[in-house]
Amino acid sequence: MSLSKKPYKGTRDFFPERKRELEYIFSVMKKTAEAFAYEPYDGPLLEEVDLYRAKSGEELINEQIYSFMDRGEREVAIRPEMTPTVARMVAQVHRETPKPIRWYAIPNLMRYERPQKGRLREHWQFNCDIFGAPEGKGEIEILQVAISLMKNLGATKEHFEILINDRRFVDAFFNEVLKTDQGTTYKLYKVIDKSKKVPVDAIEEMLTKAGVSDEQKKLFNEYLALNNFDKLTSFCSKYKIKKSCEGFLNFINDCKNSGIEEYLSFDTAIVRGLDYYTGIVFEIFDKNPENRRAICGGGAFANLLQIFKEAPLPGIGFGLGDVTLTDFLNTHKLMPDLKNPKIDLLVTFQDDSGESQSVLLAQKLREKGLKVELHFGNIRPKKVFNLTDKKGHSNVTFMGEQEVADNSVQIKNLDKKETKTFKINDIDKIVEFLGGIS
Amino acid sequence: MSLSKKPYKGTRDFFPERKRELEYIFSVMKKTAEAFAYEPYDGPLLEEVDLYRAKSGEELINEQIYSFMDRGEREVAIRPEMTPTVARMVAQVHRETPKPIRWYAIPNLMRYERPQKGRLREHWQFNCDIFGAPEGKGEIEILQVAISLMKNLGATKEHFEILINDRRFVDAFFNEVLKTDQGTTYKLYKVIDKSKKVPVDAIEEMLTKAGVSDEQKKLFNEYLALNNFDKLTSFCSKYKIKKSCEGFLNFINDCKNSGIEEYLSFDTAIVRGLDYYTGIVFEIFDKNPENRRAICGGGAFANLLQIFKEAPLPGIGFGLGDVTLTDFLNTHKLMPDLKNPKIDLLVTFQDDSGESQSVLLAQKLREKGLKVELHFGNIRPKKVFNLTDKKGHSNVTFMGEQEVADNSVQIKNLDKKETKTFKINDIDKIVEFLGGIS
Repeated sequence: MSLSKKPYKGTRDFFPERKRELEYIFSVMKKTAEAFAYEPYDGPLLEEVDLYRAKSGEELINEQIYSFMDRGEREVAIRPEMTPTVARMVAQVHRETPKPIRWYAIPNLMRYERPQKGRLREHWQFNCDIFGAPEGKGEIEILQVAISLMKNLGATKEHFEILINDRRFVDAFFNEVLKTDQGTTYKLYKVIDKSKKVPVDAIEEMLTKAGVSDEQKKLFNEYLALNNFDKLTSFCSKYKIKKSCEGFLNFINDCKNSGIEEYLSFDTAIVRGLDYYTGIVFEIFDKNPENRRAICGGGAFANLLQIFKEAPLPGIGFGLGDVTLTDFLNTHKLMPDLKNPKIDLLVTFQDDSGESQSVLLAQKLREKGLKVELHFGNIRPKKVFNLTDKKGHSNVTFMGEQEVADNSVQIKNLDKKETKTFKINDIDKIVEFLGGIS
Repeated sequence: MSLSKKPYKGTRDFFPERKRELEYIFSVMKKTAEAFAYEPYDGPLLEEVDLYRAKSGEELINEQIYSFMDRGEREVAIRPEMTPTVARMVAQVHRETPKPIRWYAIPNLMRYERPQKGRLREHWQFNCDIFGAPEGKGEIEILQVAISLMKNLGATKEHFEILINDRRFVDAFFNEVLKTDQGTTYKLYKVIDKSKKVPVDAIEEMLTKAGVSDEQKKLFNEYLALNNFDKLTSFCSKYKIKKSCEGFLNFINDCKNSGIEEYLSFDTAIVRGLDYYTGIVFEIFDKNPENRRAICGGGAFANLLQIFKEAPLPGIGFGLGDVTLTDFLNTHKLMPDLKNPKIDLLVTFQDDSGESQSVLLAQKLREKGLKVELHFGNIRPKKVFNLTDKKGHSNVTFMGEQEVADNSVQIKNLDKKETKTFKINDIDKIVEFLGGIS
């Protein structure tokens, strides 16, 4: 049996066109984060499993994690997410680092899951976090970063929206309105998580199973039906939970002054599962009904450093994966055409005597910062044009016997259909003809 | 016991300064490869172990690989090197792709080894390969790429050299001069590999152990003593192996016309172990006697696609890791100072009423492409200067009651010690004052 040429299940081979798309996405992520003065960081591919266990508990880590024993009997895992790593790193330095700490990373992550649309075993995830910002300020900025990223990728509010909720509100609803015990609250969190994906009957059934009363069911459905900030405010007044929800209500007010409100929709179904969030929680959603899915999730957390026995340091962050983002960009035709590499010049020669001059010319132009492809071996003009057609070159050199004798080179700009002959040493003039240094 | 804050053994946490250094290195790698029209690719973090087994055999893969069973009973490994992946990918597309195929990648890799200077369990490796180039041409170009990289990083021939040998020559020496059988040849390859690291007596002892005759020992030492291309040529004539070494001898001649000869030293100790090379083999060495180590290794191979039952496609490539490269750059003081991020402007306000204007100004400047850090909450000028001192900002805004009333902002350029007041809407003038868009 011959060896498989396919990549491992749920992972991808990035041939140049796809890799350029990935790099385009990364470059916009980097540019956006740095526009807000977020600094880059990275951590190890492997972490000890205890780190994930401390954050998520035994149940969650076992399901979707690539873990194994190393030869030193350490239980390690390929990072399935970046948050535990960033928490570990911040725990090392937060005491001596001026606040707020603004960090971003674009790590590759792996999760053991059934590959399907939008979900693969390996992906890259843009992570942005701010730690130690004054109450309410980091929330606004993190949302600005997320919105800027989408705008810098060419998306508008016709393409995406940010669904937002707040764990302080959800908790107040459970503790002060529904008055459920911890076990029931846990179950109802899961019902909320599923509420948009299942029919009404199914919700009814799940509530019955969770053992809630008819009165509680009514309240729960009233909660689910809240679909804008005004209704939320009325609800908080009606059930006297304004005090507990103060942080969220203030945040909503601040959003109005920050130019981000138009992207936000209040959505009670967003709770971000059983995660570690303690304040706002949000997801960026594709508005296209055929690609209706989250492409980003995040929120505020009070206590990420607790597992390291460090003093609490509040933070807000989000993660945005390349797989769903690429689907989003393709769906809305926002992915630039990166089929061909951008090569400034193809160097060819039509006589063997032109080789060494061509090699030298190519090298000199590269030293000026140009991207130069050398064709090995002499080649007839007709075949040159086959090549340039295939790879989309804009400029090509020709060097035959005559040019060699003259120490010159012919350069053709294929876009402008303009041909000019240069002395081989007139590097600056050649650079100028080629449009300068990009 | 509290959770460890340290990274997993043999891996690194990249705090912002280190991450910027890594990104600097990556950007020079990318720029260099693309100057030669090499296209980017990437592959999965995990590959099936069979891929490495097919390339390297059972013995080699077991020693240093992170392998484990996934839940679907597939034996997988974290990629310890990129060559098997690139071979697998090229095998998929080489039939319909115009030759030569020029590809590069900068993957993160893991090897299970004892961490020590220059060797960690996780590192990044710049991989450049060219497939299907005419005989001898790809070799020259790949060396040009490697040399350009070093030059683009600020290194000169005072800092590094390329030690080069050729497997065709080594094989001819074994087969036609020493006339050893395969088992002995295999042992002697290992002796060559170690020849520079052990004293002369130890070599003598290893040769005896390998069962070679006194005559063979004499020849072997004559081989090891060859230390320049002229001696190589004489040796090939003397022992009548010029025919078998033709490719290498031609290559040496071609180097003279390509401006790379000055970086090359013939070194019989370079054989690149038991690897898959079949032509030239080379290593870039730090010339500093205190950091005397290889920072790059590569060579030519005839048959990398064989394991996929594909027609032979010759290639040449190299790998260069970030750990040894960083040591090299630090040793020679070639690493730029990246302690602080490059932020175009720190936005501060000295009265609460300045907040919303400041937020808006920051956002408008970011949309122009500037990197803008917003300070949350009003702050006295003295404290502002503490901040700018610490993080090395070049420009800072001040906005007090007066400025708010005037719709204006004061901007101080800290390098030029120049302060100017602008109308808040004069974004273009502000951008100009800040030195334009980088």
